Amino acid sequence: MGQIDERLAELGIDIPTPAAPVANYLGWVRTGNLVFTAGQVTVKDGEFLYQGKVGAEISVEEAAKAAKLCAINIIAQVKQACDGDLDRVKRIVKLVGFVNGVPEFTDHPAVINGASDLMVEVFGDKGKHARSAVGAGSLPINIAVEIEAIVEVA
Amino acid sequence: MGQIDERLAELGIDIPTPAAPVANYLGWVRTGNLVFTAGQVTVKDGEFLYQGKVGAEISVEEAAKAAKLCAINIIAQVKQACDGDLDRVKRIVKLVGFVNGVPEFTDHPAVINGASDLMVEVFGDKGKHARSAVGAGSLPINIAVEIEAIVEVA
Amino acid sequence: MGQIDERLAELGIDIPTPAAPVANYLGWVRTGNLVFTAGQVTVKDGEFLYQGKVGAEISVEEAAKAAKLCAINIIAQVKQACDGDLDRVKRIVKLVGFVNGVPEFTDHPAVINGASDLMVEVFGDKGKHARSAVGAGSLPINIAVEIEAIVEVA
Repeated sequence: MGQIDERLAELGIDIPTPAAPVANYLGWVRTGNLVFTAGQVTVKDGEFLYQGKVGAEISVEEAAKAAKLCAINIIAQVKQACDGDLDRVKRIVKLVGFVNGVPEFTDHPAVINGASDLMVEVFGDKGKHARSAVGAGSLPINIAVEIEAIVEVA
Repeated sequence: MGQIDERLAELGIDIPTPAAPVANYLGWVRTGNLVFTAGQVTVKDGEFLYQGKVGAEISVEEAAKAAKLCAINIIAQVKQACDGDLDRVKRIVKLVGFVNGVPEFTDHPAVINGASDLMVEVFGDKGKHARSAVGAGSLPINIAVEIEAIVEVA
Repeated sequence: MGQIDERLAELGIDIPTPAAPVANYLGWVRTGNLVFTAGQVTVKDGEFLYQGKVGAEISVEEAAKAAKLCAINIIAQVKQACDGDLDRVKRIVKLVGFVNGVPEFTDHPAVINGASDLMVEVFGDKGKHARSAVGAGSLPINIAVEIEAIVEVA
């Protein structure tokens, strides 16, 4: 059991096995030392959670939980990219977070903090990343948040 | 004639010569073994096609064709980056697809599949990429889809 | 004083010291020779400028100035990543510009030109980059433009 696995256990976070891709794309691709993940969504145990516009049906607090779930699914993809060994993560390099807000929504950073905070809780300083938080006009299946990542691995 | 050129001929796909840039940016930049393309749009023979909001004036089926056209224009940029030799493509690493949907649009994956499917038809396993599919609030010239790519080349 | 510093002085552009991060993310992360910046916003001397929807409260001309301000803040992050020496910039590789437009907005390229033009004014041919210009559905604090960058450095 690795250090990151121990940390996840302390935090009570289960990292799921990523679902097999259902189309002509993959959950992650590695090139050199960088892993690029697909946009991760608010799916848990095969069910889509947190559906609705942020600022209308979904509050900022709920949306931050949605962002945390996206981050857990990013870690799941990265774990697979590292053959199961999350101690090979050198750095969470970049997150781009898309928030499915109403047009007048303005609090994207508070939403994406749900993902950023988790990355630092799990990976410490290696979890500190560059980040963009923007508003999408719409998102697949009307989910509240979608996040993609670039991760440096050994 | 390379293997990928033969495959494109089999598929009946013509790869255009990219238009010369009209502003202070380029269609692609290479750094190390990675080519980053500019966001590619639904232009064919100098004409903009597929203009309108997806879910209103543009159907999912039409938008998937728009995504395929963006993918053809991505391949055109990558071909130039490879001095005309598409056999130097090692991997389509990442696609980010922006769909100009109405706010309640939810079927972004079906739209961007038009690009993902083409990449795998043309490049086989090397065409399998990580992908994000998100909704834009608006797009240039009111086109239905814009897609950017990261490609590993030799 | 480096060549790029001299060029900035000629252009009358002050590069600010980036504000310390206020959350669990950073203004930039370097991996290999690439610097990924966080999405940069329209902040100057701690104040947020250019707030409003482009095509409604904000004109294209104002939005292009907003994009220029984002580009100045990108250069500020990159300067820090280069220990203060902007001559170590090898290439502005990629910009992704998000425009907070009304749904019918169509002139994203003219907005993001405000950033692209500055990069070429400052860095010359090294400033020529691949670029995506898309419409966000909303942006943090209702700013008009947010831009992120990938930069190759020595």
